[in-house]
Amino acid sequence: MPRSRPRNALYAQSGGATAVINATASGVIEAARRAAGRIGKLYAARDGILGALREELIDTSKESAAAIRALRDTPGAAFGSCRYKLKGIEEDRAKFERLVKVLHAHDIGWFFYNGGNDSADTALKLSRISVKMGYPLAAIGVPKTIDNDLPVTDCCPGFGSAAKYVATSVREAGLDVASMASTSTRVFVLEVMGRHAGWITAACGLAAERAGDAPHVLLFPERPFDEQRFLARVTRSVGQRGCCVIAVSEGLRDAQGRFLAEAGTIDAFGHRQLGGVAPRIAALVQSKLGYKTHWAVADYLQRAARHIASRTDLEQAYAVGKAAVAMALEGKSAVMPVIVRVADRPYRWRIGEARLEQVANRERRLPRAFVSADGFGITAAARRYLAPLVAGEAPPSFRNGLPVYVRLRNATVRKRLRERFDP
Amino acid sequence: MPRSRPRNALYAQSGGATAVINATASGVIEAARRAAGRIGKLYAARDGILGALREELIDTSKESAAAIRALRDTPGAAFGSCRYKLKGIEEDRAKFERLVKVLHAHDIGWFFYNGGNDSADTALKLSRISVKMGYPLAAIGVPKTIDNDLPVTDCCPGFGSAAKYVATSVREAGLDVASMASTSTRVFVLEVMGRHAGWITAACGLAAERAGDAPHVLLFPERPFDEQRFLARVTRSVGQRGCCVIAVSEGLRDAQGRFLAEAGTIDAFGHRQLGGVAPRIAALVQSKLGYKTHWAVADYLQRAARHIASRTDLEQAYAVGKAAVAMALEGKSAVMPVIVRVADRPYRWRIGEARLEQVANRERRLPRAFVSADGFGITAAARRYLAPLVAGEAPPSFRNGLPVYVRLRNATVRKRLRERFDP
Repeated sequence: MPRSRPRNALYAQSGGATAVINATASGVIEAARRAAGRIGKLYAARDGILGALREELIDTSKESAAAIRALRDTPGAAFGSCRYKLKGIEEDRAKFERLVKVLHAHDIGWFFYNGGNDSADTALKLSRISVKMGYPLAAIGVPKTIDNDLPVTDCCPGFGSAAKYVATSVREAGLDVASMASTSTRVFVLEVMGRHAGWITAACGLAAERAGDAPHVLLFPERPFDEQRFLARVTRSVGQRGCCVIAVSEGLRDAQGRFLAEAGTIDAFGHRQLGGVAPRIAALVQSKLGYKTHWAVADYLQRAARHIASRTDLEQAYAVGKAAVAMALEGKSAVMPVIVRVADRPYRWRIGEARLEQVANRERRLPRAFVSADGFGITAAARRYLAPLVAGEAPPSFRNGLPVYVRLRNATVRKRLRERFDP
Repeated sequence: MPRSRPRNALYAQSGGATAVINATASGVIEAARRAAGRIGKLYAARDGILGALREELIDTSKESAAAIRALRDTPGAAFGSCRYKLKGIEEDRAKFERLVKVLHAHDIGWFFYNGGNDSADTALKLSRISVKMGYPLAAIGVPKTIDNDLPVTDCCPGFGSAAKYVATSVREAGLDVASMASTSTRVFVLEVMGRHAGWITAACGLAAERAGDAPHVLLFPERPFDEQRFLARVTRSVGQRGCCVIAVSEGLRDAQGRFLAEAGTIDAFGHRQLGGVAPRIAALVQSKLGYKTHWAVADYLQRAARHIASRTDLEQAYAVGKAAVAMALEGKSAVMPVIVRVADRPYRWRIGEARLEQVANRERRLPRAFVSADGFGITAAARRYLAPLVAGEAPPSFRNGLPVYVRLRNATVRKRLRERFDP
C-alpha cells in the first residue's frame, strides 16, 4: 500500500564548526527540496545530536530559498552543533532508543549526520539499532572536519579552507617579519590546529614556494619535539635570512608524549595557564637564543574564516550534502559520500561512496612521505596532494565592508513526545 | 643657472609594517616616475632610516612598472623597515649629520619618510638640520600606522585594513562560538593590537550589527580593567545568549596602570612567559566562572592581512604617496599629506596637508564619546567614524589558491662615501 505522505528527514551537524559545513547543509536542504515528492519535511536538529535526543527539531521549510543559498557563504554551524559522543549500543541503549522514538514520532525515514569519525560511528549504530527495533531508517554520514583525518575520503570538507587560511596567513606574516627583522622580531611562531594529525601544519608549508620563503620550520604533532635540533635549525635560518618563521601544531609533544601546551604554567593570578604552544616555543627561542620573538594563535579564526574559503573545498562541501540525499533516495543506508581524487594536475575529483564502518572511529594520519627528511618541512608529494585543495576563491558578499552572513529563523517544531529527555 | 640633471629623491619605510604601506610606496614611486624630468632617481632606503645611515640605498628604477604596481597588493615593507628612533638634534647630531652627508653624496633633494609620529619627528628634524647645514632638502612625512593614532589626519593608512581584518575575524569566530556553546566553548577571547589607543579594539565592535551579535565585550586600553564588573558582564552575556565573545587590546591595564600582559608568568621551562593578555583573560574567566574558554592572538596576522584589505584604506594609502610627491614638487617641506573627511554618508574624503610639527610625537587617543557608557562597547558615533574606513574590497590576485605577492629585486646602489657608519 503506497504511503499517503512521503517520510521526513533529519539533518544534524556534529563536532567543531568549519567555514563550509553550512554549504553541506545547503546541499542537503536544496537536494531534499528538489525531491519534494519523495522526502517530506527536512528537519534539522538543534545543537546536533542533542537536539535529536531532546526532540528539539528545526523546520527548515520555514527558511527561504535565499537563506538556504546564503548558507553556502556562512561559517559556523547554522543549526548548532555539539561535542557529544554516544558510546556503545549496550552502554547507551536508552539514548539510542530515545533517538529512534523521536525519529518515529516525526516520521523520519532518513538521518543525515554531518561530522567526523565519531559521527560516522553514531550514524552506523543508529542504523543498526533501528533495524533491531524494526524501525526503517536510512542513516547517512556526511563528512566534515578541518582535521582532514577521515579515512577513505581523499580529503575532508572544511580542511581546504582552513589550509588556505593558514597558508595565506603565514605567507603574509612572513613578509611582515622579513621586512622588520634587522631591528625587531627575528622569530615568529604561528600556532595552528590539528591535535593528532599534522595536516593543517603541513598546509602552512604551501606558503613557501621559493627558497627562503616563510615558513622556515614546521613542527608536526607526529614528530616528538627535539629542542636541540629545533634551536639549531632556528639559528641557521636566522643566520641565512635574518629571520625564522615557524608554524607549530597545537598538538606538539615532547619525547615522552606530553603535549607542550599542557606543561604546567601558572599566571600572575595563580591560575593554571591554558594551552598555547606558540608562546612556549617563542619563550624557548627568546631565552635560549636571545632573539626577539612574536607569536600568534589562530584558534577558531582558522576554522571560521569563510572570507578566505577555498572554492574547491566549498564545492566539495556542497557536493557531499547533495550526494548524501541522492544516496538516501537510492535506498542506501550506513554509507557516506566521499571525495575521490581522479587526477592531481589538472585536479579532478568525483563523489564516491564509503560504508560507515570503514570510516567510524578511524583516523588517517599524515603520511610519512609528506614530511621532509629533516622533519621540519613538507615534500613535493605533500605539495601535490595539498595544492588543489586550497585552489580557487569563493568570497562571500560584503556589506559595509564586512562579510554578510545569514542568520536563520530556526523555527522549532512542536514536540510530539510527552517524555522529556535531558542527556 | 639651471641644473643639468634633476636631483634625486629618497623614500624610506618606518616602524611596523601594514597591509598597505607598499601601496604608499607604489604611489610615491609611480608619481616620481611621472615627474621624471624634475625628479631624477628615486632611491629607497634598505630597512628604513638605518639604510639611509648606512648608505644602503636601493635603486627603484631597476624595478619594472608591473612590480611597482604589484606593490599595491603586497603586505610587509618591501624595502625593509626598522624600529630605530633618532633622538634630539644635539643628542644625535652625528647621526643627523651622517644622514645629510649620505643625501648629499647621492644628490638627494627630497626625502619621503613613511611612518608614524616618530618618523614625522625625524623628518622634521632632518629638514631643520639640513637648513642649518646649508643643504637644500625637502622632507615630507607620509602617514602610516595601524594604530590610527596620528593627529590632524582623519585616519591613518593601514588602520582601515587592520580594522576590517579584526571585525571580520571576530564576526566569523563569533558564529563558530555561538553554534557550539551548548556543549563546548562559552567564552572566546580575541587579542588585538593597539597598545596605547583602542582604535583597533573599537573596530572589532563593527562586527556587531544586530542585538546579540559578537563581540559582546570590548576591553579598551584606555579603561582600567575592573575584574568584578567584567566578570559580571560575562556572566550576563552567557546567561542571555549562551556565550560571550570578547575582544581585548594587548594594552589592557589594571587600576595601577600595569599591563595585564606583563604580569609575571613562568612556564614549564622556567622561562618568563611572553605577553598575551588573551590567555590571561581566558584563564580568569575559566577559574572564576568555570566556563570553557578559547582564545586567539592575531598578532602580525592583523597588520599583514592584505587578502582582506579595505579598499578605502588601500586607496588612501596610495593617494598619500602620490600626494607626498606632488607636495615636494610644489616646493614644500616639513609637511605631510593627511586624510580629510568631507562627509560620513556617503563617505567622501580628500587629501589635506599638515605641518610635521603638528604631527611629530603627538598621539591621538580614542575619543571618550566612542566608548559606550558601560565601557564595554562602542557608540553610534564610533560606528559612523569607523564604518567607511573598512568599506570596499580589494583582493590581491591568487595563484594556486594563494595570494600573489611581489618580491622586488632591491638592487643596491654603489656607495659613494668612504666612511662606513654602523648605528
